[in-house]
Amino acid sequence: MHDDLMNTALAARTAALAMQDLPSSVKDGALERIAAALELNAESIEQENARDMERGEAAGLAGPLMKRLCFDRARILQTVEGVRGLIRLPDPVGQTRMARRLDAGLDLYRVVCPIGVIGVIFESRPDALVQISTLCLKSGNAVLLKGGSEAAGTNRILAEIIAEACIGTGVPAGWIGLMESREDVSRLLGMDDCVDLLVPRGSNAFVRYIMDNTRIPVLGHADGICHTYVDDKADLAMAVRVCVDAKTQYVAVCNATETILVHRAIAFTAVPELAAALRAAGVQIFGDDAVCALIGCPPVEDWHTEYLDYKVSMRIVDSLDEAIAHINRFGSRHTDAILTADAETARRFLARVDSGNVFWNCSTRFSDGFRYGFGAEVGVSTSKIHARGPVGLEGLMTYKYKLLGHGDIVSDFSSGSRTFRHEELEGPCPV
Amino acid sequence: MHDDLMNTALAARTAALAMQDLPSSVKDGALERIAAALELNAESIEQENARDMERGEAAGLAGPLMKRLCFDRARILQTVEGVRGLIRLPDPVGQTRMARRLDAGLDLYRVVCPIGVIGVIFESRPDALVQISTLCLKSGNAVLLKGGSEAAGTNRILAEIIAEACIGTGVPAGWIGLMESREDVSRLLGMDDCVDLLVPRGSNAFVRYIMDNTRIPVLGHADGICHTYVDDKADLAMAVRVCVDAKTQYVAVCNATETILVHRAIAFTAVPELAAALRAAGVQIFGDDAVCALIGCPPVEDWHTEYLDYKVSMRIVDSLDEAIAHINRFGSRHTDAILTADAETARRFLARVDSGNVFWNCSTRFSDGFRYGFGAEVGVSTSKIHARGPVGLEGLMTYKYKLLGHGDIVSDFSSGSRTFRHEELEGPCPV
Repeated sequence: MHDDLMNTALAARTAALAMQDLPSSVKDGALERIAAALELNAESIEQENARDMERGEAAGLAGPLMKRLCFDRARILQTVEGVRGLIRLPDPVGQTRMARRLDAGLDLYRVVCPIGVIGVIFESRPDALVQISTLCLKSGNAVLLKGGSEAAGTNRILAEIIAEACIGTGVPAGWIGLMESREDVSRLLGMDDCVDLLVPRGSNAFVRYIMDNTRIPVLGHADGICHTYVDDKADLAMAVRVCVDAKTQYVAVCNATETILVHRAIAFTAVPELAAALRAAGVQIFGDDAVCALIGCPPVEDWHTEYLDYKVSMRIVDSLDEAIAHINRFGSRHTDAILTADAETARRFLARVDSGNVFWNCSTRFSDGFRYGFGAEVGVSTSKIHARGPVGLEGLMTYKYKLLGHGDIVSDFSSGSRTFRHEELEGPCPV
Repeated sequence: MHDDLMNTALAARTAALAMQDLPSSVKDGALERIAAALELNAESIEQENARDMERGEAAGLAGPLMKRLCFDRARILQTVEGVRGLIRLPDPVGQTRMARRLDAGLDLYRVVCPIGVIGVIFESRPDALVQISTLCLKSGNAVLLKGGSEAAGTNRILAEIIAEACIGTGVPAGWIGLMESREDVSRLLGMDDCVDLLVPRGSNAFVRYIMDNTRIPVLGHADGICHTYVDDKADLAMAVRVCVDAKTQYVAVCNATETILVHRAIAFTAVPELAAALRAAGVQIFGDDAVCALIGCPPVEDWHTEYLDYKVSMRIVDSLDEAIAHINRFGSRHTDAILTADAETARRFLARVDSGNVFWNCSTRFSDGFRYGFGAEVGVSTSKIHARGPVGLEGLMTYKYKLLGHGDIVSDFSSGSRTFRHEELEGPCPV
């Protein structure tokens, strides 16, 4: 069944093999051409996007969706800046991560290489198309893109501009493929022969749907149920400042705190103070029985809730271990913070909370690839396999072992005429 | 539904959290106790194993299965040696892999930590139980074990000895759980809430069944269809030596060569010479039309075949790129070798063959964790995600980001009153 979709996928797989040893200069040259082409065609992109926005408005698309769909001049230029930033990052491909002499003339190298074909599935935001496809190019991966139908016009012109900008640069044709029809999503999810990794970008429900309907490994996260635990050894003024930031600095994001846990020993003072500051910032509080009794608030419905809003759950716990148990039970392994002046308490919390990001005396809002200094962000992973926490370019990389010999055979080692030395080597793999 | 299996799984999850910060001395002390207990109880283990062997013989178990089931004194002592070797390896937990100052007083660390609960499913070989459970203990992971029913007695006594040896050492009870009933396998495969990674050990069909029937990440490989490509620039004497070793040094293993590809320019000389040496070693050859015509052999049925026997497929290719295309199409991404005197040809082969292990001028039989000097082997992975090739202790590790602050909030950075510095730090994470 070689229809359009299959041809696009096969072309990506073929391109991916040639991209395994594409020189950095070729990739960076193509990225510069992409950046220039996006600037040059900014007006056409804006026009296509305006048409998508008109259609969206006519179809009664919700406000937040319309906002994410918008790709105006400012956002285009910001995206172009992102591409130029990517050019400045070192090429991860070909880096030697281990070098070992097994015996004289038999040298083993672990070398970083691209994963192959990355499938990207995103809702609305057209900047995701540019961001992920250029991350794939920099990392030597081919990419299959499937955007939301509401942004079809914008996505099509962006994919065309990017593909055309690469012609003549040495990047193999077919490295970027756009899928457009609705059935393409479920077929892409079934292409585990052809696609090595999926990167979904969109709402929690969307990412969970992807995770639940494919055997291809998925890089990303669905829920972001983050906690801040105020220990009995916490500096209360600091706790108030950090909790307000963690909850309100930007409520609609995955690393905003959704639940505040407070140690019983300080609850009588701390809960009313925290509540006053949070309410002053416009936050509605939902508590367990003890919190409700202390500050007069409605009860929590469900400790699993991700509000993404000016709402927060609050619970009083008897001990550090109860806080840890609550987080490991109800959290989403994303980001959780402790506020305490005691180093041993912090150590235990950081060790035992089973999340990708565990923070001491700071806001959960810091868990982000750009704040971590990763330069470019693929996404935040709540998986414990492959990549965890904010993921930079390395999330799109794997490695292979290269063994360089001179006719070496295993019989010589099993017979005892040669023995393994396993000496560490210096320097990169020579081929 | 809290039956035995669920209780075992929940106990493992609870233990896993406590194991996150278990001191190395506690783990190594427990490993030494395990080694001593296995030695001390060697006779009882042998007796249980003899009973399993009797039952197996009565049930008409095939020869190779009986051989794998056997756990006699020599194998027990070899396994104990493996445990002592593990003690000597450095503890991977807590190693700092990245340290960065985001701004004054706000330091980020990427720290290696255990994955959590590892599910191990194995056929016959009781040594797999000891090997993987001690690897899990060293790496701070809890383990759920499900062995084959043919080794039920041996598995039960081994799991009991290991669990009892750890009592009083500081390792939390419940860290090792044995599952025994047949229905337990399918339930274990469905426990994606509780089990973080599955390590299957057994036949190809068995591993494929596991991979096809779970959403839990699987570390391992099903097929091992390895290739050796004899380039037109190959030293023919070396090619003969290496091909014979790669095929015959041990035929029943995943890294034995199953297909030999020969460049057309040298085929007229090379194919008969290779054939003569392979036949002298007892190997039956199956060829494409050209090979059949040259040496008079039966035709290949299927390039996907993993013989695991004194049989090999042989094909003549027109070019390096045809060899690469054949391997990427029919191989299993395990181990593939090129024999050539030309460095650029080798470079292209090593870059473009999409396998975990790519070898130049040596036998495919070298791809093995012990030969690579990894000290302990979890298995060989043909996945491109998480771990690839032979996997040592690090395959059982993940990492988390620890951010240590002094009340830092994101608002200060978004308002511009503070800015990110991203300075690299020296030294390990202090908590």
